[in-house]
Amino acid sequence: MPRTLVLTKHPRDYETLIEAARLPDLTLVAASEVEDGLARGGSSEVLVGDPGRVTAALPRLPNLRWVQLTWAGVERMLDPALRRDYVLTNIRGVFGPLMSEFVFSYLLAHERKILQRVEAQREGRWDATLPGTLQGKTIGLVGVGSIGAHLAATAKHFGMTVRGYTRASEESSHVDRYFHGAARVEFAAGLDYLVAVLPNTPGTRRIVDDEMLRALPPHAMVVNAGRGDTLDTEALIRALQEKRLAAAVLDVFEEEPLPPAHPLWSTPGAFITSHTAAPSFPADIVGVFVENYRRFARGEPLLYRVDFERGY
Amino acid sequence: MPRTLVLTKHPRDYETLIEAARLPDLTLVAASEVEDGLARGGSSEVLVGDPGRVTAALPRLPNLRWVQLTWAGVERMLDPALRRDYVLTNIRGVFGPLMSEFVFSYLLAHERKILQRVEAQREGRWDATLPGTLQGKTIGLVGVGSIGAHLAATAKHFGMTVRGYTRASEESSHVDRYFHGAARVEFAAGLDYLVAVLPNTPGTRRIVDDEMLRALPPHAMVVNAGRGDTLDTEALIRALQEKRLAAAVLDVFEEEPLPPAHPLWSTPGAFITSHTAAPSFPADIVGVFVENYRRFARGEPLLYRVDFERGY
Repeated sequence: MPRTLVLTKHPRDYETLIEAARLPDLTLVAASEVEDGLARGGSSEVLVGDPGRVTAALPRLPNLRWVQLTWAGVERMLDPALRRDYVLTNIRGVFGPLMSEFVFSYLLAHERKILQRVEAQREGRWDATLPGTLQGKTIGLVGVGSIGAHLAATAKHFGMTVRGYTRASEESSHVDRYFHGAARVEFAAGLDYLVAVLPNTPGTRRIVDDEMLRALPPHAMVVNAGRGDTLDTEALIRALQEKRLAAAVLDVFEEEPLPPAHPLWSTPGAFITSHTAAPSFPADIVGVFVENYRRFARGEPLLYRVDFERGY
Repeated sequence: MPRTLVLTKHPRDYETLIEAARLPDLTLVAASEVEDGLARGGSSEVLVGDPGRVTAALPRLPNLRWVQLTWAGVERMLDPALRRDYVLTNIRGVFGPLMSEFVFSYLLAHERKILQRVEAQREGRWDATLPGTLQGKTIGLVGVGSIGAHLAATAKHFGMTVRGYTRASEESSHVDRYFHGAARVEFAAGLDYLVAVLPNTPGTRRIVDDEMLRALPPHAMVVNAGRGDTLDTEALIRALQEKRLAAAVLDVFEEEPLPPAHPLWSTPGAFITSHTAAPSFPADIVGVFVENYRRFARGEPLLYRVDFERGY
């Protein structure tokens, strides 16, 4: 009967869902018992939580055997100063559909001129300007993991051509053409949409740089929903200011929250979405936890186990 | 060598595309020759055009054999006062993808709170409010023809449950449950989204009435992209004003353009899209015309032929 502790922002949402799953032998340590320095939670063997709360608790959990992260990002767990004597699993698979809704909400809003039509309505003006369409347009995905593959499938549903820029992998059948390594300008040339969804792996800093941005046509839109340092922010701001780009939807930043004085807030064409692209909804996370708990109880390998050495 | 005449708002776009198709034996009557009362166009056998321009020209085309409409809507062609001694074909098939982009642009903008985040950005405020998701939500389609079937497929791609309200047909496999006839309240109860895309057929007036609107939960959004009289506008305005509905996206109206003094312009939650949901893009229309011209030249049955008696 593994004692299980939930350390998240809204622990009751998780606890209610975990209780509803009626998992065999599970003893849930109530969040309310945890407030006083893990007084009772300290004997837990299983931990469900986000990286910030989990890393803070790690030194005080002598019986810890398994941590189920509520995030995809594992970077903070890889700090060499932290223990690694437990099984770490993260969340994968559930963010593709959410990221698809995020990315395509902005692509479609752009084509359908939603903001322009709201403005016309405020003025009581019948605005019959023709919309654009995603059909026949080309989207370039920087990073084609499970999230990129889902975006590629959605792009195909809307009749788009899909390019992928990856280190080496060519796994999604929805990508029409792959580019690697030095073929960055070739990848970006002529794209209508460039969407960066790089996972949290090393070696991906500023892949979308001034050179890649200059290869895009002036009607292009850039979306960054991976990590903040994928993109050269200064180069992007210059591109928007000089009208070399139509728009940029930015969900992640090198510093979050984005500082109030940051020029991006008022750069024309920039849309700030405040790291809301693919949140961890408790129902999705608990779905992964429940499957993994059943495996854990039977001594089977867990889904989405993180290799501390490889970093993912 | 059938003389072919284009009567549309932007005839040069059509003519350029038709010329590029290099159709055998086709003689295109230049739009510039038509201005003076069809002086030379009057001998045309084939006409490509919208209902308004076509009906005006009908009495002056003695050699007319075939009209390819650039619209889906055929109502104006059915006026009993007009001749019916020619083959009439309309446009079908191309509007499903466009309508899908229209409907889902607003569904996704609603879930992702795009307007709210734009407002927050204007204030320089990091707005990390959680988005909603289409996954697990229920969409109800009033009318499931070729357009409704395409919407159902897109809804399934986004993980939605799909209900269909039709007179009798149950043709789309993407609809989870069909409703007919008197089951109007049952159809509407608990819907997150009600989307009306009824074709231009008789007997569909005010199907979405006060009773159906009252069956929707207060967080629901209504979309009307079929025809203006499908919806009881006064009942809709009351529902929005009394917060019994979250939003309504309206593309079509009983009078178009919507009169400047109409209360819909400023009804809270109403979005006016000024009949732009599924425009006839010349490239799509010419694609249908080219296929039909080849059939016409070979004496084969044409695609999308309209039956004057049935009205579609």
